[in-house]
Amino acid sequence: MRIALGIEYDGTDFSGWQRLKTDASVQGALEQALSKVAAHPVEVSCAGRTDAGVHGRCQVVHFDTGARRDMRGWMLGACSNLPASVAVLWAQPVLESFHARYAARSRRYRYHILNRPVRAALDARYVTWERLPLDAGRMHVAAQALLGEHDFSAFRALSCQATHPRRSVLAVSVRREDEEVFVDIEANAFLHHMVRNIVGSLLMIGRDERPVEWMAELLAGCDRQAAGPTAAASGLTFIGPRYERHWGLPAEVCLMGAAQ
Amino acid sequence: MRIALGIEYDGTDFSGWQRLKTDASVQGALEQALSKVAAHPVEVSCAGRTDAGVHGRCQVVHFDTGARRDMRGWMLGACSNLPASVAVLWAQPVLESFHARYAARSRRYRYHILNRPVRAALDARYVTWERLPLDAGRMHVAAQALLGEHDFSAFRALSCQATHPRRSVLAVSVRREDEEVFVDIEANAFLHHMVRNIVGSLLMIGRDERPVEWMAELLAGCDRQAAGPTAAASGLTFIGPRYERHWGLPAEVCLMGAAQ
Repeated sequence: MRIALGIEYDGTDFSGWQRLKTDASVQGALEQALSKVAAHPVEVSCAGRTDAGVHGRCQVVHFDTGARRDMRGWMLGACSNLPASVAVLWAQPVLESFHARYAARSRRYRYHILNRPVRAALDARYVTWERLPLDAGRMHVAAQALLGEHDFSAFRALSCQATHPRRSVLAVSVRREDEEVFVDIEANAFLHHMVRNIVGSLLMIGRDERPVEWMAELLAGCDRQAAGPTAAASGLTFIGPRYERHWGLPAEVCLMGAAQ
Repeated sequence: MRIALGIEYDGTDFSGWQRLKTDASVQGALEQALSKVAAHPVEVSCAGRTDAGVHGRCQVVHFDTGARRDMRGWMLGACSNLPASVAVLWAQPVLESFHARYAARSRRYRYHILNRPVRAALDARYVTWERLPLDAGRMHVAAQALLGEHDFSAFRALSCQATHPRRSVLAVSVRREDEEVFVDIEANAFLHHMVRNIVGSLLMIGRDERPVEWMAELLAGCDRQAAGPTAAASGLTFIGPRYERHWGLPAEVCLMGAAQ
Protein backbone atom coordinates (compact mmCIF):
# COMPACT_ATOMS: atom_id res chain seq x y z
CA MET A 1 0.00 0.00 0.00
CA ARG A 2 1.29 3.44 -0.96
CA ILE A 3 0.63 6.45 1.27
CA ALA A 4 1.22 10.16 0.60
CA LEU A 5 1.88 12.64 3.41
CA GLY A 6 1.95 16.43 3.63
CA ILE A 7 4.89 17.61 5.78
CA GLU A 8 5.51 20.99 7.43
CA TYR A 9 8.94 21.75 8.85
CA ASP A 10 11.15 24.45 10.29
CA GLY A 11 14.47 23.84 8.56
CA THR A 12 16.57 25.97 10.93
CA ASP A 13 18.06 23.14 12.95
CA PHE A 14 18.38 20.59 10.15
CA SER A 15 21.22 19.93 7.71
CA GLY A 16 18.55 19.88 5.00
CA TRP A 17 15.91 17.47 3.77
CA GLN A 18 18.14 14.60 2.67
CA ARG A 19 19.10 11.82 5.08
CA LEU A 20 22.80 11.81 5.94
CA LYS A 21 24.84 9.45 8.05
CA THR A 22 25.52 11.86 10.91
CA ASP A 23 23.65 15.19 10.75
CA ALA A 24 19.99 15.71 11.61
CA SER A 25 17.85 15.73 8.46
CA VAL A 26 14.11 16.16 8.00
CA GLN A 27 13.97 12.93 5.97
CA GLY A 28 15.81 11.03 8.70
CA ALA A 29 13.50 12.33 11.44
CA LEU A 30 10.42 11.48 9.37
CA GLU A 31 11.59 7.99 8.43
CA GLN A 32 12.43 7.25 12.04
CA ALA A 33 8.96 8.36 13.19
CA LEU A 34 7.15 6.43 10.42
CA SER A 35 9.21 3.31 11.07
CA LYS A 36 7.98 3.33 14.67
CA VAL A 37 4.35 3.65 13.59
CA ALA A 38 4.74 0.99 10.85
CA ALA A 39 6.89 -1.31 13.00
CA HIS A 40 9.12 -1.84 9.96
CA PRO A 41 11.80 0.32 8.30
CA VAL A 42 10.23 3.03 6.13
CA GLU A 43 11.88 4.99 3.31
CA VAL A 44 10.22 8.09 1.91
CA SER A 45 10.53 9.88 -1.46
CA CYS A 46 9.86 13.61 -1.50
CA ALA A 47 8.61 16.11 -4.08
CA GLY A 48 11.56 18.47 -3.67
CA ARG A 49 14.68 18.28 -1.51
CA THR A 50 15.51 21.43 0.45
CA ASP A 51 18.86 22.71 1.73
CA ALA A 52 19.98 23.38 5.29
CA GLY A 53 17.90 26.15 6.89
CA VAL A 54 15.18 26.09 4.20
CA HIS A 55 11.64 25.51 5.49
CA GLY A 56 8.73 23.44 4.18
CA ARG A 57 5.09 24.56 4.25
CA CYS A 58 3.70 21.47 2.53
CA GLN A 59 6.38 19.10 1.34
CA VAL A 60 4.85 15.91 -0.09
CA VAL A 61 6.31 12.42 0.35
CA HIS A 62 5.18 8.91 -0.37
CA PHE A 63 6.14 5.56 1.14
CA ASP A 64 5.11 1.93 0.88
CA THR A 65 3.95 -0.21 3.75
CA GLY A 66 2.18 -3.46 4.51
CA ALA A 67 1.15 -2.17 7.96
CA ARG A 68 -2.57 -1.52 8.40
CA ARG A 69 -3.21 1.84 10.10
CA ASP A 70 -5.95 4.32 9.37
CA MET A 71 -4.85 7.69 7.95
CA ARG A 72 -5.42 9.43 11.27
CA GLY A 73 -3.17 6.83 12.89
CA TRP A 74 -0.32 7.54 10.45
CA MET A 75 -0.70 11.28 10.90
CA LEU A 76 -0.95 11.44 14.67
CA GLY A 77 1.43 8.53 15.25
CA ALA A 78 4.12 10.17 13.14
CA CYS A 79 3.53 13.58 14.77
CA SER A 80 3.97 12.20 18.25
CA ASN A 81 7.30 10.64 17.25
CA LEU A 82 8.62 13.70 15.43
CA PRO A 83 10.61 16.62 16.88
CA ALA A 84 8.61 19.84 17.44
CA SER A 85 10.02 21.31 14.22
CA VAL A 86 8.34 18.70 11.93
CA ALA A 87 4.62 17.88 11.60
CA VAL A 88 2.54 15.61 9.35
CA LEU A 89 -0.35 17.72 8.03
CA TRP A 90 -2.30 14.92 6.34
CA ALA A 91 -2.02 11.30 5.18
CA GLN A 92 -3.78 9.82 2.19
CA PRO A 93 -3.73 6.45 0.40
CA VAL A 94 -2.57 6.78 -3.23
CA LEU A 95 -2.29 4.52 -6.28
CA GLU A 96 0.95 2.54 -6.62
CA SER A 97 1.63 4.60 -9.76
CA PHE A 98 1.85 7.83 -7.73
CA HIS A 99 5.36 9.13 -7.08
CA ALA A 100 5.83 12.29 -4.95
CA ARG A 101 8.69 13.46 -7.17
CA TYR A 102 7.84 12.25 -10.66
CA ALA A 103 4.11 12.98 -10.49
CA ALA A 104 4.65 16.60 -9.38
CA ARG A 105 3.71 19.00 -12.19
CA SER A 106 5.10 22.10 -10.46
CA ARG A 107 6.79 23.35 -7.28
CA ARG A 108 6.20 26.63 -5.47
CA TYR A 109 8.67 28.55 -3.34
CA ARG A 110 8.33 31.74 -1.32
CA TYR A 111 11.25 33.96 -0.34
CA HIS A 112 10.59 36.30 2.58
CA ILE A 113 12.68 39.46 3.00
CA LEU A 114 12.52 41.79 6.02
CA ASN A 115 13.41 45.19 4.59
CA ARG A 116 14.15 47.73 7.32
CA PRO A 117 17.17 49.38 8.96
CA VAL A 118 17.21 46.88 11.87
CA ARG A 119 17.65 43.11 11.82
CA ALA A 120 14.79 40.78 12.82
CA ALA A 121 14.21 39.67 16.41
CA LEU A 122 10.75 38.14 15.96
CA ASP A 123 10.58 35.71 13.00
CA ALA A 124 14.38 35.75 12.65
CA ARG A 125 14.30 32.08 11.59
CA TYR A 126 11.94 32.78 8.71
CA VAL A 127 13.24 35.90 7.05
CA THR A 128 16.32 37.28 5.35
CA TRP A 129 17.17 40.80 6.44
CA GLU A 130 17.91 43.48 3.85
CA ARG A 131 18.98 46.79 5.38
CA LEU A 132 18.92 48.92 2.22
CA PRO A 133 15.55 50.02 0.78
CA LEU A 134 14.26 47.67 -1.93
CA ASP A 135 12.10 48.75 -4.84
CA ALA A 136 9.75 45.76 -5.03
CA GLY A 137 8.13 47.15 -8.17
CA ARG A 138 11.47 47.07 -10.04
CA MET A 139 12.14 43.57 -8.77
CA HIS A 140 8.72 42.40 -9.95
CA VAL A 141 9.21 43.79 -13.46
CA ALA A 142 12.72 42.31 -13.70
CA ALA A 143 11.50 38.89 -12.54
CA GLN A 144 8.98 38.63 -15.38
CA ALA A 145 11.91 37.93 -17.73
CA LEU A 146 12.14 34.49 -16.09
CA LEU A 147 8.68 33.39 -17.27
CA GLY A 148 8.60 30.48 -19.70
CA GLU A 149 11.11 27.76 -20.55
CA HIS A 150 14.78 28.79 -20.40
CA ASP A 151 18.28 27.52 -19.75
CA PHE A 152 18.73 28.61 -16.12
CA SER A 153 22.51 28.00 -15.96
CA ALA A 154 23.00 31.59 -14.74
CA PHE A 155 21.18 30.65 -11.53
CA ARG A 156 22.47 27.10 -11.11
CA ALA A 157 24.77 26.01 -8.28
CA LEU A 158 28.02 24.28 -9.19
CA SER A 159 26.85 21.37 -7.05
CA CYS A 160 23.68 20.88 -9.14
CA GLN A 161 23.23 17.29 -10.29
CA ALA A 162 20.34 17.83 -12.71
CA THR A 163 20.81 16.25 -16.14
CA HIS A 164 20.00 19.51 -17.98
CA PRO A 165 19.53 23.20 -17.05
CA ARG A 166 16.20 23.88 -18.77
CA ARG A 167 13.26 24.71 -16.51
CA SER A 168 9.86 26.36 -17.06
CA VAL A 169 8.90 29.19 -14.75
CA LEU A 170 5.09 29.31 -14.59
CA ALA A 171 4.58 32.33 -12.33
CA VAL A 172 6.76 34.80 -10.47
CA SER A 173 5.87 37.87 -8.44
CA VAL A 174 7.51 40.29 -6.03
CA ARG A 175 5.33 42.35 -3.69
CA ARG A 176 5.77 44.51 -0.62
CA GLU A 177 3.67 44.50 2.58
CA ASP A 178 4.96 47.28 4.84
CA GLU A 179 8.50 46.24 5.86
CA GLU A 180 8.27 42.84 4.18
CA VAL A 181 8.96 41.82 0.58
CA PHE A 182 7.77 38.46 -0.75
CA VAL A 183 9.12 36.71 -3.84
CA ASP A 184 6.80 33.93 -5.03
CA ILE A 185 7.93 31.62 -7.79
CA GLU A 186 6.43 28.53 -9.37
CA ALA A 187 8.22 26.33 -11.91
CA ASN A 188 7.91 22.81 -13.24
CA ALA A 189 11.09 22.08 -11.27
CA PHE A 190 14.13 23.92 -9.91
CA LEU A 191 17.89 23.58 -10.25
CA HIS A 192 19.99 23.48 -7.08
CA HIS A 193 20.02 26.96 -5.40
CA MET A 194 17.94 28.34 -8.30
CA VAL A 195 15.51 30.36 -6.16
CA ARG A 196 18.21 31.72 -3.86
CA ASN A 197 20.40 32.67 -6.82
CA ILE A 198 17.49 34.41 -8.55
CA VAL A 199 16.68 36.31 -5.35
CA GLY A 200 20.33 37.30 -4.93
CA SER A 201 20.21 39.02 -8.33
CA LEU A 202 16.74 40.50 -7.73
CA LEU A 203 18.07 42.08 -4.51
CA MET A 204 20.75 43.90 -6.52
CA ILE A 205 18.06 45.23 -8.87
CA GLY A 206 15.85 46.17 -5.91
CA ARG A 207 18.73 48.17 -4.40
CA ASP A 208 19.17 49.91 -7.77
CA GLU A 209 22.68 48.50 -8.21
CA ARG A 210 21.66 46.95 -11.53
CA PRO A 211 19.08 47.94 -14.19
CA VAL A 212 15.76 46.14 -14.50
CA GLU A 213 16.93 44.60 -17.80
CA TRP A 214 19.82 42.86 -16.05
CA MET A 215 17.69 39.81 -15.20
CA ALA A 216 17.02 39.09 -18.89
CA GLU A 217 20.71 39.63 -19.70
CA LEU A 218 21.83 37.23 -16.98
CA LEU A 219 19.39 34.58 -18.18
CA ALA A 220 20.57 34.91 -21.80
CA GLY A 221 24.24 34.84 -20.74
CA CYS A 222 23.99 31.47 -18.91
CA ASP A 223 26.95 32.52 -16.74
CA ARG A 224 26.64 31.87 -13.02
CA GLN A 225 29.67 34.11 -12.37
CA ALA A 226 27.84 37.13 -13.80
CA ALA A 227 24.80 36.81 -11.51
CA GLY A 228 24.32 37.98 -7.90
CA PRO A 229 25.30 36.03 -4.77
CA THR A 230 23.19 33.19 -3.35
CA ALA A 231 20.60 34.69 -0.97
CA ALA A 232 20.48 33.28 2.59
CA ALA A 233 18.56 30.07 3.30
CA SER A 234 16.47 31.38 6.22
CA GLY A 235 14.10 33.42 4.04
CA LEU A 236 13.22 30.47 1.79
CA THR A 237 10.18 28.23 2.23
CA PHE A 238 9.16 25.38 -0.06
CA ILE A 239 5.41 26.05 -0.25
CA GLY A 240 4.86 22.68 -1.90
CA PRO A 241 4.36 20.76 -5.14
CA ARG A 242 1.25 20.55 -7.29
CA TYR A 243 -0.22 17.37 -8.77
CA GLU A 244 -2.99 16.59 -11.19
CA ARG A 245 -6.39 16.34 -9.56
CA HIS A 246 -6.97 12.70 -10.45
CA TRP A 247 -4.53 11.63 -7.71
CA GLY A 248 -7.12 12.81 -5.18
CA LEU A 249 -4.72 14.76 -2.94
CA PRO A 250 -5.71 17.78 -0.78
CA ALA A 251 -6.53 20.99 -2.68
CA GLU A 252 -3.40 22.82 -1.50
CA VAL A 253 -1.20 20.48 -3.57
CA CYS A 254 -3.44 20.29 -6.65
CA LEU A 255 -3.02 22.13 -9.94
CA MET A 256 -5.32 25.14 -10.40
CA GLY A 257 -5.00 26.38 -6.84
CA ALA A 258 -7.17 25.79 -3.84
CA ALA A 259 -10.58 26.00 -5.57
CA GLN A 260 -12.31 22.62 -5.34
CA MET B 1 19.06 63.39 28.56
CA ARG B 2 16.10 61.02 28.28
CA ILE B 3 15.85 58.60 25.35
CA ALA B 4 12.94 56.37 24.26
CA LEU B 5 13.50 53.13 22.37
CA GLY B 6 11.21 50.75 20.46
CA ILE B 7 12.11 47.12 21.24
CA GLU B 8 11.19 43.93 19.37
CA TYR B 9 11.81 40.56 21.03
CA ASP B 10 11.17 36.86 20.78
CA GLY B 11 10.26 35.92 24.34
CA THR B 12 10.71 32.16 23.91
CA ASP B 13 14.09 31.86 25.57
CA PHE B 14 13.60 34.53 28.26
CA SER B 15 12.17 34.26 31.76
CA GLY B 16 10.14 37.35 30.89
CA TRP B 17 10.71 41.07 30.56
CA GLN B 18 11.77 41.85 34.13
CA ARG B 19 15.40 41.69 35.20
CA LEU B 20 16.08 38.89 37.68
CA LYS B 21 19.22 37.89 39.52
CA THR B 22 19.84 34.65 37.65
CA ASP B 23 17.56 33.98 34.66
CA ALA B 24 17.88 35.61 31.26
CA SER B 25 15.44 38.53 30.94
CA VAL B 26 14.80 40.93 28.06
CA GLN B 27 15.32 43.90 30.37
CA GLY B 28 18.64 42.48 31.59
CA ALA B 29 19.88 41.88 28.03
CA LEU B 30 18.83 45.37 26.95
CA GLU B 31 20.38 47.13 29.96
CA GLN B 32 23.62 45.24 29.45
CA ALA B 33 23.76 46.26 25.78
CA LEU B 34 22.88 49.92 26.48
CA SER B 35 25.41 50.10 29.33
CA LYS B 36 28.13 49.11 26.87
CA VAL B 37 27.08 51.79 24.39
CA ALA B 38 26.72 54.44 27.13
CA ALA B 39 29.86 53.36 29.00
CA HIS B 40 27.89 53.72 32.25
CA PRO B 41 25.23 51.53 33.93
CA VAL B 42 21.82 52.04 32.30
CA GLU B 43 18.41 51.19 33.78
CA VAL B 44 15.33 51.15 31.59
CA SER B 45 11.61 51.55 32.38
CA CYS B 46 9.15 49.83 30.05
CA ALA B 47 5.56 50.42 28.95
CA GLY B 48 4.37 46.93 29.87
CA ARG B 49 6.17 43.97 31.45
CA THR B 50 5.62 40.65 29.71
CA ASP B 51 5.80 37.10 31.10
CA ALA B 52 8.09 34.23 30.13
CA GLY B 53 7.52 33.17 26.51
CA VAL B 54 5.48 36.28 25.59
CA HIS B 55 6.82 38.28 22.63
CA GLY B 56 7.14 42.01 21.98
CA ARG B 57 6.45 43.67 18.62
CA CYS B 58 7.13 47.22 19.80
CA GLN B 59 7.77 47.47 23.53
CA VAL B 60 8.72 51.01 24.51
CA VAL B 61 11.32 51.89 27.14
CA HIS B 62 13.03 55.05 28.31
CA PHE B 63 16.35 55.64 30.05
CA ASP B 64 18.50 58.56 31.15
CA THR B 65 22.07 59.14 30.10
CA GLY B 66 24.74 61.80 30.02
CA ALA B 67 26.53 60.04 27.16
CA ARG B 68 26.44 61.81 23.81
CA ARG B 69 25.55 59.46 20.96
CA ASP B 70 23.37 60.13 17.96
CA MET B 71 20.12 58.14 17.75
CA ARG B 72 21.54 55.85 15.06
CA GLY B 73 24.45 55.14 17.39
CA TRP B 74 22.15 54.07 20.24
CA MET B 75 20.07 51.92 17.92
CA LEU B 76 22.86 50.13 16.06
CA GLY B 77 25.19 50.01 19.07
CA ALA B 78 22.54 48.35 21.22
CA CYS B 79 21.56 45.93 18.40
CA SER B 80 25.12 44.76 17.96
CA ASN B 81 25.38 44.00 21.69
CA LEU B 82 22.01 42.24 21.96
CA PRO B 83 21.25 38.55 21.42
CA ALA B 84 19.58 37.68 18.09
CA SER B 85 16.18 37.50 19.80
CA VAL B 86 16.11 41.22 20.75
CA ALA B 87 16.38 44.27 18.47
CA VAL B 88 16.10 48.04 18.92
CA LEU B 89 13.72 49.34 16.23
CA TRP B 90 14.24 53.06 16.82
CA ALA B 91 15.68 55.55 19.28
CA GLN B 92 14.36 59.03 19.94
CA PRO B 93 15.16 61.84 22.39
CA VAL B 94 12.18 62.69 24.64
CA LEU B 95 11.32 65.32 27.24
CA GLU B 96 12.36 64.57 30.84
CA SER B 97 8.64 64.44 31.65
CA PHE B 98 8.09 61.41 29.37
CA HIS B 99 7.77 58.06 31.15
CA ALA B 100 7.35 54.88 29.08
CA ARG B 101 4.90 53.42 31.60
CA TYR B 102 3.02 56.41 33.02
CA ALA B 103 2.66 58.30 29.75
CA ALA B 104 1.17 55.29 27.91
CA ARG B 105 -2.53 55.87 27.21
CA SER B 106 -3.20 52.30 26.03
CA ARG B 107 -1.56 48.93 25.38
CA ARG B 108 -2.29 46.50 22.55
CA TYR B 109 -1.90 42.73 22.59
CA ARG B 110 -2.42 40.10 19.92
CA TYR B 111 -3.09 36.44 20.65
CA HIS B 112 -2.37 34.06 17.76
CA ILE B 113 -4.08 30.65 17.64
CA LEU B 114 -3.29 27.91 15.11
CA ASN B 115 -6.59 26.06 14.72
CA ARG B 116 -6.14 22.74 12.89
CA PRO B 117 -5.91 19.04 13.70
CA VAL B 118 -2.09 19.03 13.71
CA ARG B 119 0.32 21.00 15.93
CA ALA B 120 2.57 23.71 14.47
CA ALA B 121 6.02 22.97 13.06
CA LEU B 122 6.65 26.32 11.37
CA ASP B 123 5.96 29.30 13.67
CA ALA B 124 5.67 27.01 16.70
CA ARG B 125 7.25 29.73 18.89
CA TYR B 126 4.60 32.25 17.95
CA VAL B 127 1.30 30.39 18.11
CA THR B 128 -0.87 28.43 20.50
CA TRP B 129 -2.30 25.29 18.98
CA GLU B 130 -6.02 24.51 19.30
CA ARG B 131 -6.98 21.14 17.85
CA LEU B 132 -10.76 21.47 18.09
CA PRO B 133 -12.59 23.71 15.58
CA LEU B 134 -13.16 27.25 16.88
CA ASP B 135 -16.09 29.44 15.92
CA ALA B 136 -14.30 32.80 15.69
CA GLY B 137 -17.62 34.57 15.09
CA ARG B 138 -18.98 33.38 18.47
CA MET B 139 -15.73 34.37 20.16
CA HIS B 140 -15.91 37.83 18.62
CA VAL B 141 -19.48 38.42 19.79
CA ALA B 142 -18.68 37.14 23.29
CA ALA B 143 -15.59 39.35 23.54
CA GLN B 144 -17.60 42.53 22.94
CA ALA B 145 -18.93 42.19 26.51
CA LEU B 146 -15.46 43.25 27.68
CA LEU B 147 -15.66 46.72 26.10
CA GLY B 148 -15.63 49.66 28.48
CA GLU B 149 -14.51 50.05 32.07
CA HIS B 150 -15.05 47.02 34.32
CA ASP B 151 -13.72 45.20 37.34
CA PHE B 152 -11.63 42.48 35.63
CA SER B 153 -11.11 40.33 38.74
CA ALA B 154 -12.48 37.30 36.83
CA PHE B 155 -9.42 37.44 34.56
CA ARG B 156 -6.81 38.52 37.11
CA ALA B 157 -3.94 36.27 38.22
CA LEU B 158 -3.49 35.62 41.94
CA SER B 159 0.03 37.03 41.55
CA CYS B 160 -1.27 40.39 40.25
CA GLN B 161 0.17 43.35 42.16
CA ALA B 162 -2.06 46.09 40.70
CA THR B 163 -3.66 48.40 43.25
CA HIS B 164 -7.17 47.90 41.84
CA PRO B 165 -8.85 45.58 39.29
CA ARG B 166 -10.63 48.18 37.12
CA ARG B 167 -9.45 48.48 33.52
CA SER B 168 -10.93 49.97 30.34
CA VAL B 169 -11.02 47.80 27.24
CA LEU B 170 -11.00 50.13 24.23
CA ALA B 171 -11.23 47.59 21.40
CA VAL B 172 -11.39 43.81 21.06
CA SER B 173 -11.83 41.59 18.03
CA VAL B 174 -11.55 37.93 17.08
CA ARG B 175 -11.11 36.99 13.43
CA ARG B 176 -10.15 33.94 11.40
CA GLU B 177 -7.72 33.73 8.46
CA ASP B 178 -7.78 30.16 7.14
CA GLU B 179 -6.31 27.98 9.92
CA GLU B 180 -5.40 30.94 12.11
CA VAL B 181 -7.48 32.86 14.64
CA PHE B 182 -6.33 36.25 15.95
CA VAL B 183 -7.55 37.91 19.15
CA ASP B 184 -6.69 41.63 19.23
CA ILE B 185 -7.29 43.60 22.40
CA GLU B 186 -6.50 47.14 23.42
CA ALA B 187 -7.02 48.53 26.93
CA ASN B 188 -5.76 51.45 28.98
CA ALA B 189 -3.76 48.85 30.95
CA PHE B 190 -3.90 45.15 31.79
CA LEU B 191 -3.92 43.07 34.98
CA HIS B 192 -1.42 40.23 35.29
CA HIS B 193 -2.39 37.36 32.91
CA MET B 194 -5.49 39.30 31.87
CA VAL B 195 -5.18 38.64 28.12
CA ARG B 196 -4.29 34.97 28.55
CA ASN B 197 -7.17 34.46 31.01
CA ILE B 198 -9.62 36.17 28.66
CA VAL B 199 -8.40 34.01 25.76
CA GLY B 200 -8.70 30.86 27.90
CA SER B 201 -12.41 31.60 28.36
CA LEU B 202 -12.93 32.67 24.75
CA LEU B 203 -11.49 29.32 23.62
CA MET B 204 -14.18 27.51 25.63
CA ILE B 205 -16.85 29.63 23.92
CA GLY B 206 -15.21 29.05 20.51
CA ARG B 207 -15.35 25.28 21.10
CA ASP B 208 -19.03 25.62 22.01
CA GLU B 209 -18.43 24.41 25.55
CA ARG B 210 -19.97 27.60 26.96
CA PRO B 211 -22.65 29.99 25.60
CA VAL B 212 -21.75 33.33 24.07
CA GLU B 213 -23.28 35.11 27.09
CA TRP B 214 -20.77 33.42 29.43
CA MET B 215 -18.18 36.15 28.95
CA ALA B 216 -20.54 38.81 30.35
CA GLU B 217 -21.49 36.51 33.24
CA LEU B 218 -17.85 35.87 34.12
CA LEU B 219 -17.07 39.57 34.06
CA ALA B 220 -20.04 40.39 36.33
CA GLY B 221 -19.16 37.54 38.72
CA CYS B 222 -15.60 38.80 39.39
CA ASP B 223 -14.59 35.20 40.25
CA ARG B 224 -11.32 33.95 38.76
CA GLN B 225 -12.26 30.36 39.69
CA ALA B 226 -15.30 30.48 37.42
CA ALA B 227 -13.37 31.50 34.29
CA GLY B 228 -11.39 29.34 31.85
CA PRO B 229 -7.71 28.32 32.23
CA THR B 230 -4.82 30.65 31.41
CA ALA B 231 -3.98 30.27 27.69
CA ALA B 232 -0.35 29.42 26.80
CA ALA B 233 2.25 32.21 26.61
CA SER B 234 3.63 31.35 23.16
CA GLY B 235 0.62 32.77 21.25
CA LEU B 236 0.80 36.16 22.96
CA THR B 237 2.56 39.23 21.56
CA PHE B 238 2.63 42.68 23.14
CA ILE B 239 2.04 44.80 20.03
CA GLY B 240 2.96 47.93 21.96
CA PRO B 241 1.73 50.96 23.88
CA ARG B 242 0.20 54.14 22.50
CA TYR B 243 1.11 57.68 23.56
CA GLU B 244 -0.25 61.12 22.85
CA ARG B 245 1.13 62.66 19.69
CA HIS B 246 2.81 65.60 21.39
CA TRP B 247 5.62 63.32 22.62
CA GLY B 248 6.74 63.02 19.01
CA LEU B 249 7.22 59.24 18.95
CA PRO B 250 6.92 57.06 15.80
CA ALA B 251 3.39 56.65 14.41
CA GLU B 252 3.12 52.98 15.41
CA VAL B 253 3.07 53.95 19.11
CA CYS B 254 0.83 57.01 18.79
CA LEU B 255 -2.89 57.27 19.57
CA MET B 256 -5.15 57.22 16.50
CA GLY B 257 -3.22 54.53 14.63
CA ALA B 258 -0.54 54.86 12.02
CA ALA B 259 -2.02 57.83 10.10
CA GLN B 260 0.33 60.81 10.44
